[in-house]
Amino acid sequence: MKLYESPSPNARRVHIFMAEKGLECERIEVDIRAAENLSTEYLAKNPGGRVPMLELQDGTCIGESVAICRYMESLQPEAPLFGMPGVEAAKVEMWQRRAEMNFFLEVAGAFRNITGFFKDRETCVAEWGRVCAERAPKMLSMFDEQLERTPYLAGDNFSIADITLVVALDFARMVKVVEVPDLPSIERWYGDVSARSSFAAS
Amino acid sequence: MKLYESPSPNARRVHIFMAEKGLECERIEVDIRAAENLSTEYLAKNPGGRVPMLELQDGTCIGESVAICRYMESLQPEAPLFGMPGVEAAKVEMWQRRAEMNFFLEVAGAFRNITGFFKDRETCVAEWGRVCAERAPKMLSMFDEQLERTPYLAGDNFSIADITLVVALDFARMVKVVEVPDLPSIERWYGDVSARSSFAAS
Repeated sequence: MKLYESPSPNARRVHIFMAEKGLECERIEVDIRAAENLSTEYLAKNPGGRVPMLELQDGTCIGESVAICRYMESLQPEAPLFGMPGVEAAKVEMWQRRAEMNFFLEVAGAFRNITGFFKDRETCVAEWGRVCAERAPKMLSMFDEQLERTPYLAGDNFSIADITLVVALDFARMVKVVEVPDLPSIERWYGDVSARSSFAAS
Repeated sequence: MKLYESPSPNARRVHIFMAEKGLECERIEVDIRAAENLSTEYLAKNPGGRVPMLELQDGTCIGESVAICRYMESLQPEAPLFGMPGVEAAKVEMWQRRAEMNFFLEVAGAFRNITGFFKDRETCVAEWGRVCAERAPKMLSMFDEQLERTPYLAGDNFSIADITLVVALDFARMVKVVEVPDLPSIERWYGDVSARSSFAAS
């Protein structure tokens, strides 16, 4: 299988997930600044033109980093990073979505609209970027309160929700458009999680 | 178990999913216009204050409609609406995310920012609403092309991805902030899917 990718928080999510699972595959760099992801050939494989994208031996293409991770989980089900079916999987889904929608997407909205990084291909509204930048840090208290009660976001076990939140926090710190407050339980958890060897995966 | 809800596209997703699974539960109406979802009691159960939310017998609370549906899937695994583990589940995740992020969230962004429906509790940027309203219909061609090739969004089987897209399309038509073009394969599929008895669930 081949992973089409460009350096991004979403590619990093997949790398960390694969390292946790001990999986490897061929990687093909897609130059998104040169709009290679918008070429006819790429769009035929992955409509929407997003990266990363996984191409299987039989030509099946899987877009969306969480979908790629879910496929990887089926190749190597232990230890489950999407939780065991039932309450555990539901809690992972819940916290994964919260990390993504309430924080990661806000940071991305702030970054794209304030810096105009993709202004050659999308309309940017700086005022909206500022709304996102203001909202993102406020959401962190929800995660901090949860991490006061449990070792990991979804409970006792490390999951994809933790990967998403760490990657989003690191991205926020790197692009500097969102202020990331120091919160005690997030700090404790961030230290634990980012020390895992998988987080050095690149 | 108890489902806390208010009339919304997300509540409708859960209702349809439950009807597909033949599941029922007690329902508790939450008045979001009166900000009941932002009360201390509700927030203790579901930080972030979103609806719907499912409370289990043991007090466990599950927020996020897709997480609630995933829990329902574990109660009644047949027929799977999240796909069988492996390529099928990955494709469902991919199309479910595309339906949600590339269409449903754009429609919601247009609705909230243009109409100011929640302006008592969030900052609205009308210009951003117009960007969302312009983007949403353009994404529909991706779904139309897929539905030209396969009976359902994720392939041969009906899935949660279909539920999300129908609910989002109906919401877009209802709130009238997004133009919904007539596309032939979407029309064929919409007729098939919305005729299922589960879609009459409310």
